[in-house]
Amino acid sequence: MNRIITIGREFGSGGRELGRRLAEELGIEYYDREIMEQIAQKTSFSRDYVQQVVEGRSHRLYPITINHTFNTFAAEQHAQMIQTVFEAQIQTLHEMAELSSCVIVGRCADYFLREYQPFRIFVYADLESRVQRCLERSDDDEVLEGKELRRQIRRIDRNRARYYTDCTGQTWGDKQFYDLCLNTTGKNIKQLVPSLARMLE
Amino acid sequence: MNRIITIGREFGSGGRELGRRLAEELGIEYYDREIMEQIAQKTSFSRDYVQQVVEGRSHRLYPITINHTFNTFAAEQHAQMIQTVFEAQIQTLHEMAELSSCVIVGRCADYFLREYQPFRIFVYADLESRVQRCLERSDDDEVLEGKELRRQIRRIDRNRARYYTDCTGQTWGDKQFYDLCLNTTGKNIKQLVPSLARMLE
Repeated sequence: MNRIITIGREFGSGGRELGRRLAEELGIEYYDREIMEQIAQKTSFSRDYVQQVVEGRSHRLYPITINHTFNTFAAEQHAQMIQTVFEAQIQTLHEMAELSSCVIVGRCADYFLREYQPFRIFVYADLESRVQRCLERSDDDEVLEGKELRRQIRRIDRNRARYYTDCTGQTWGDKQFYDLCLNTTGKNIKQLVPSLARMLE
Repeated sequence: MNRIITIGREFGSGGRELGRRLAEELGIEYYDREIMEQIAQKTSFSRDYVQQVVEGRSHRLYPITINHTFNTFAAEQHAQMIQTVFEAQIQTLHEMAELSSCVIVGRCADYFLREYQPFRIFVYADLESRVQRCLERSDDDEVLEGKELRRQIRRIDRNRARYYTDCTGQTWGDKQFYDLCLNTTGKNIKQLVPSLARMLE
C-alpha cells in the first residue's frame, strides 16, 4: 500500500511549507492546489467556485432572494453543486493515493483516505507567530494591516474548521484525530523536516 | 542553558517509556518518580501523601467531620500542606533543570520550567490502545477487568487534568500548550524515539 501523509494546518502555521519539504525529503509526490485543479476539471466548475467550496466559503455563494419558491430551488441547486464538488474531491484524493506514495495538504484527506491508514499531521502555531509568517511571505503591496490580518486568519480557520466538520463529523485540529500535532511557533521548519521524515519512513 | 524536555501524558499512552528512551537516546538525565522522592525529603511528608497531592488526588485526604470549626481548621491545615508540597515541587524541578539537560515526566514541568523554554511533548492514545498497554504491562495477579481498568484510566486522567489546571491555569493536553503532541495508538515507541531525538538535538 502506498504511504500517505496528510497535513491539516492552521492558516499561516507553515503547514504547506512543511508538507512540501517533507515530500521532497521523502522523495514522494506532493499535492496541494493540484487537487482543486483536478476537481475543477472533473466537475467543469470554475476553479474559483471549487476553491470556495473546499475552503468552506460556499455559504457566501448562496443566492439572496426574497422569493421563497426560487430560494428553495436555488438552495437545492446549490446543495447539488456542493455534493458534486464533494464527490469529485473524494474521487481525486483516492486517485492520488492509488497512484503513488504522497503528501496531501488539506482537503480532509486524513478522513477520506482513512482506509489507507495515512500518517495524519496537524500543524499549528500561536496567532502572533502566524501573523509574522504571513507578513514575511506577502508582497509589499499585498500586506494587510495587523488587525485586519488577524481577522482574516481567524476567518479562514473558522471556514476550514466548519468545512472539516461538515465533511468528517470530526473536530478540526482535535489531536485525537491526528497522529502528530506540531507547534511551529518559534521553530525552523526546514530544520525539523529531516528528522520528521525519518520518523515516517 | 540546559536542554529541558517535558513529557505530559495520558495514562497508559506510553509517555513514560517514550521519556525514558528519549533520555537514553540523547544521553541526558531522566526524572519521573525521583521528583516525588525529592519532594518527600524536602517536606518530610510521606511519599504516599506527596504522590496523592501531585497526582491530583489530594481532595480525598480532606478530613470528614460535621464540626464546622474543626472542619475550617482542618481545611486550612490541609491547604497549607498542599502549598508546602507545591513549593517543594517547584524547587525540585528548578534544581533538576539547573543541574543538567534532562527529560522530566509529568509534574507540570512544562509550565513551572517555562523560563528554560523546554520542548514540551504531550503523549496520548485512544482508550482501547491504552487499555491494551496496561494489560500487557500488568502482573497477572494485578490485572483489572476491562471495565474497571477503563474507569481507572479515566479517573487518573481526570485527576491529572485537574491538578494541571490548578497549578498552571492551562488546560491539560490542549495542544496550544505543547510543542509536539504524539498519538501512540498503533505505534512502536522504541522505533519512534531515534528520529524524535534527532528533532530535539
